[in-house]
Amino acid sequence: MRIKTLTIVGVGLIGGSVALAAKRRGLAKCVIGAGRHQERLARALTLGAIDKAYTDVNAAVHQSELAVFCTPVDQIAEQVLAAAAGCSPTTVLTDAGSTKAQIVRKVESQMAGDKAFVGSHPLAGSEKSGVEHADASLFEGRLTIVTQTPRTNARALERVKEFWQGLGSRTCLMDPEEHDRALALTSHLPHLVASALAGILPRELHKLTATGFQDTTRVAMGDPSIWTAIFSQNPAALLEALQRLERRLDEFRVALSDADLAALDALLAQGKGVRDALGS
Amino acid sequence: MRIKTLTIVGVGLIGGSVALAAKRRGLAKCVIGAGRHQERLARALTLGAIDKAYTDVNAAVHQSELAVFCTPVDQIAEQVLAAAAGCSPTTVLTDAGSTKAQIVRKVESQMAGDKAFVGSHPLAGSEKSGVEHADASLFEGRLTIVTQTPRTNARALERVKEFWQGLGSRTCLMDPEEHDRALALTSHLPHLVASALAGILPRELHKLTATGFQDTTRVAMGDPSIWTAIFSQNPAALLEALQRLERRLDEFRVALSDADLAALDALLAQGKGVRDALGS
Repeated sequence: MRIKTLTIVGVGLIGGSVALAAKRRGLAKCVIGAGRHQERLARALTLGAIDKAYTDVNAAVHQSELAVFCTPVDQIAEQVLAAAAGCSPTTVLTDAGSTKAQIVRKVESQMAGDKAFVGSHPLAGSEKSGVEHADASLFEGRLTIVTQTPRTNARALERVKEFWQGLGSRTCLMDPEEHDRALALTSHLPHLVASALAGILPRELHKLTATGFQDTTRVAMGDPSIWTAIFSQNPAALLEALQRLERRLDEFRVALSDADLAALDALLAQGKGVRDALGS
Repeated sequence: MRIKTLTIVGVGLIGGSVALAAKRRGLAKCVIGAGRHQERLARALTLGAIDKAYTDVNAAVHQSELAVFCTPVDQIAEQVLAAAAGCSPTTVLTDAGSTKAQIVRKVESQMAGDKAFVGSHPLAGSEKSGVEHADASLFEGRLTIVTQTPRTNARALERVKEFWQGLGSRTCLMDPEEHDRALALTSHLPHLVASALAGILPRELHKLTATGFQDTTRVAMGDPSIWTAIFSQNPAALLEALQRLERRLDEFRVALSDADLAALDALLAQGKGVRDALGS
């Protein structure tokens, strides 16, 4: 796969990493960074992540074979729709948002039938943000979920899969709603819980934390506005995941109250079994 | 500080690290490893963590200036009391247990007044276990809590502080009950929650986890029997910490149900503020 012009909309940690990876792997001849913030684009240029900077997102997308929207999830659908309006049917549009159902539903219901959008979500990231933390190897060995619906254009789907594979990622196809239900448990709930654990820690106990607390709460360093948008795009699945967690916490509470060591041990052993299976 | 004979009771990850650090830093002339499991002691000898191995714990302790009990928290008090019975008053006994109130209370209420026990808890560890994962630098730059009660022997307290400092750790004094209330929030609750998050993950979603899930649940890889003992030595404080977390989860639930983005953002920003203050 060789792309003449690739546009990255939103050159932060993820967008910057897509740009760097595409350049390092020779996937794109020219990488355009597009976005509203001139200063961020200037940093991306300085770091060599992009070849050109555009504050006119649509103008950048219209001259590209592929455009990847790496903006916050609550902005993606509108930006895709705005750019799609003037696009050639050969331009493939995709994104890197952590939620999929609302984005894909909105885009598919409002976009002209001859335009091609395919939802994507690379399962890679960091609690850090900004193009200065971008990493050309961020997607290597990771999994990117590519969404498929009855409206998905088969050729565009293949192009998008090839693109993420070209960045070093594996890919798998999922329905957007199924994606959001799964990610509620694997990503959104852990983030919520990490934030809650950090948030209830009184200041006088800061010095009594060690690596265990730091690991368990690390993701809570993520940008609150990014995560507010993610949570608010997936409330039903996240509430269901939270309820599932609260039932498990209840089991711990009962075992602790009853001093039921066998029950505590069984709960901890079950959790360890799952965690061990994921590797370090 | 130079110890002629140092005994480590329980040569696993923590005991092995104490032994290795004491040897590397020239803190002890002879390090004895003591415990019931001959095979574990043989591994510690092979790895050079200890100079001698004793399966008779009391015999080892009785010839030592300092003995550190690194066994599971539900075994420490009885082992200390058994060893203290035949000890010289110049032998200082301490431990490395993750709970302190029950251990210190039991030892102080049953030990002869001329014997010296001081509770300790180095805030360092790993989800791994076994002497093969011991690390001579485990305590460097970490904090060790040393407990002080009205019955604590001042000379022994100084020796124990100096010992942990000799291993590269900072030290701070705390009341045992205060320690347990603090660690419920900084260590025991995060462990419980990590285990719960891992435990509710269905098998078909394993492949959809990434670094965020792995960080948040890493401590759940710890040995269940070790953590069952810790939880069951600190149920009241852990239940109170759990209740505090559940109130915070409730705030998230309400904000999600109400689609209250400002409330979500405020909760996430507060959690981030605390977590950022702890460093990476």
